Amino acid sequence: MRILILGAAGMVGRRLIDRLLAEKTIAGEVITAIDAFDVVAPQIAASDGVTIDAKAGDIADEATVKALVDKRPDMIFHLAAIVSGEAEADFDKGYRINQQGMSYLLEAIRAEGENYRPRLVFTSSIAVFGAPFEDKITDTFLAAPLTSYGTQKAICELLLNDYSRKGFVDGVGIRLPTIVVRPGKPNKAASSFFSGIIREPLAGEEAILPVADDVQHWVASPASAVEFLMHAATMDTDVLGARRCLTMPGLSVTIAEMIEALREVAGDEVVNRIRREPDAVIEKIVAGWPRDFDASRAESVGFSADKSFADIIRAHIAAEAVRG
Amino acid sequence: MRILILGAAGMVGRRLIDRLLAEKTIAGEVITAIDAFDVVAPQIAASDGVTIDAKAGDIADEATVKALVDKRPDMIFHLAAIVSGEAEADFDKGYRINQQGMSYLLEAIRAEGENYRPRLVFTSSIAVFGAPFEDKITDTFLAAPLTSYGTQKAICELLLNDYSRKGFVDGVGIRLPTIVVRPGKPNKAASSFFSGIIREPLAGEEAILPVADDVQHWVASPASAVEFLMHAATMDTDVLGARRCLTMPGLSVTIAEMIEALREVAGDEVVNRIRREPDAVIEKIVAGWPRDFDASRAESVGFSADKSFADIIRAHIAAEAVRG
Repeated sequence: MRILILGAAGMVGRRLIDRLLAEKTIAGEVITAIDAFDVVAPQIAASDGVTIDAKAGDIADEATVKALVDKRPDMIFHLAAIVSGEAEADFDKGYRINQQGMSYLLEAIRAEGENYRPRLVFTSSIAVFGAPFEDKITDTFLAAPLTSYGTQKAICELLLNDYSRKGFVDGVGIRLPTIVVRPGKPNKAASSFFSGIIREPLAGEEAILPVADDVQHWVASPASAVEFLMHAATMDTDVLGARRCLTMPGLSVTIAEMIEALREVAGDEVVNRIRREPDAVIEKIVAGWPRDFDASRAESVGFSADKSFADIIRAHIAAEAVRG
Repeated sequence: MRILILGAAGMVGRRLIDRLLAEKTIAGEVITAIDAFDVVAPQIAASDGVTIDAKAGDIADEATVKALVDKRPDMIFHLAAIVSGEAEADFDKGYRINQQGMSYLLEAIRAEGENYRPRLVFTSSIAVFGAPFEDKITDTFLAAPLTSYGTQKAICELLLNDYSRKGFVDGVGIRLPTIVVRPGKPNKAASSFFSGIIREPLAGEEAILPVADDVQHWVASPASAVEFLMHAATMDTDVLGARRCLTMPGLSVTIAEMIEALREVAGDEVVNRIRREPDAVIEKIVAGWPRDFDASRAESVGFSADKSFADIIRAHIAAEAVRG
């Protein structure tokens, strides 16, 4: 089993690779090779019995993508994207990386011919939905994004469905909730603060909260994101019919609830490191995002959510302790 | 007022041009020039005071599209497409004409810079929707096409929304019902028979009905299609918010109801020219199409439907009499 991971240097990509190397098998087959690709070369420790090829390159370069697919990976994870804030600021770059890259990937797979139909797991986003919403958004609700990032993801979903319907690829698109708590540094995503207000105070640092306490959002832990990817890679796709893309289960929590969970787990002193500093640009972007979902379709085919936001915080603290 | 029409040689494009030349003004301004573009050069009679430039070319050629937009039309109608059956049979051609052409058009408009923001009316299709459906499909229902044609139209809608949101263009996308009765010859659209079973018997010829009598479909007359275009070109787009694409009002009729309307208008002898010859390929495509809509959003902003299917047939007969 050869596995190609696009966006392998990102937080979710690195966790996925750790998991694959720990499991050593997937879908009942031994993992023999992992091709790890990103805009910067992924750093991956050597592993017995698994050939690891880590490369840096441009996913919006047609020849680069073709060369990766020419190795005929049995399974492909496409996690590569520039984030929402950057895609909104740089219109050309957003379409190039987030949409053209996917088009090249699908075309490279199709060009391999009839005997090649790999599983392709694509990370989409709840940003494909835009206000006004129904109260709990179902999988039959209109994708009407209010950002270029969401538009690019929605286009990729349509392409994944059509290429799967035509039998060129065996695609599964998973709309990730906002991943909280992301380890490391803030990034350019407009959603970065959702992690920041937990991560920084726990690390003894001040965090900026740019939106109101009653902002409600749909979140999942990094561990859940990896579980979603593993299940999407191994599930029976016949049950999906022509609709290959699903909203992943998450927790719908308000900022106030997040803060109270942080207080429950870590106390007042930690919570007091959150500083409120409203940012009109971020408030406007976040106001266009969905707040709550009915993820019963994903649950009915085996995906499951985190149990509570306090548990997400505790898992983050435990992971940071291991990381040292 | 300079107007660019892409797909000007098609049935709807020719009727639109006739209408524009008859009106001489649009949105309160005098029409001074019409650039008419299609894969074959549109045949347009000279008209006092209006400069007509009819050109043949490839809408999926970037330089061609750029040259058309460089003339800075105040209003653009993008009607050009290859039909559903052809897009399903020729995957590459479908994406090239139906999606890449739109991308080049939007990019050419954006490249003109901040002082240029033309109204762009784009003809989408109810083929953006795919089974399973809700009973009456609303404008918040998921676009989950079951054809490549529908996928291409859905991608164009997403792009039109995003480019409009960013202020690069002032777009309106109208999802046309199946146009019945189309004059002339059958085309490669899988929906061609909906017109054929009315048009051919009225002309004294046999028509093939490839689907069952209980097939239900969403239709509008050619005259309504032109009304939709004229209204989309002149309406206040502020009322649309970020959702620039609408399902046009139509009539939801079964094949049996169409045939009974034909009998009412033209008698048994005409109806007897319809020959039932089921075609599994067409039946499968049509089974994936929507049957009924709640078009109240479009109605609330001034679009309106035909009154009855018998009226549609009578209008066709009257138009054929004029045509000789």
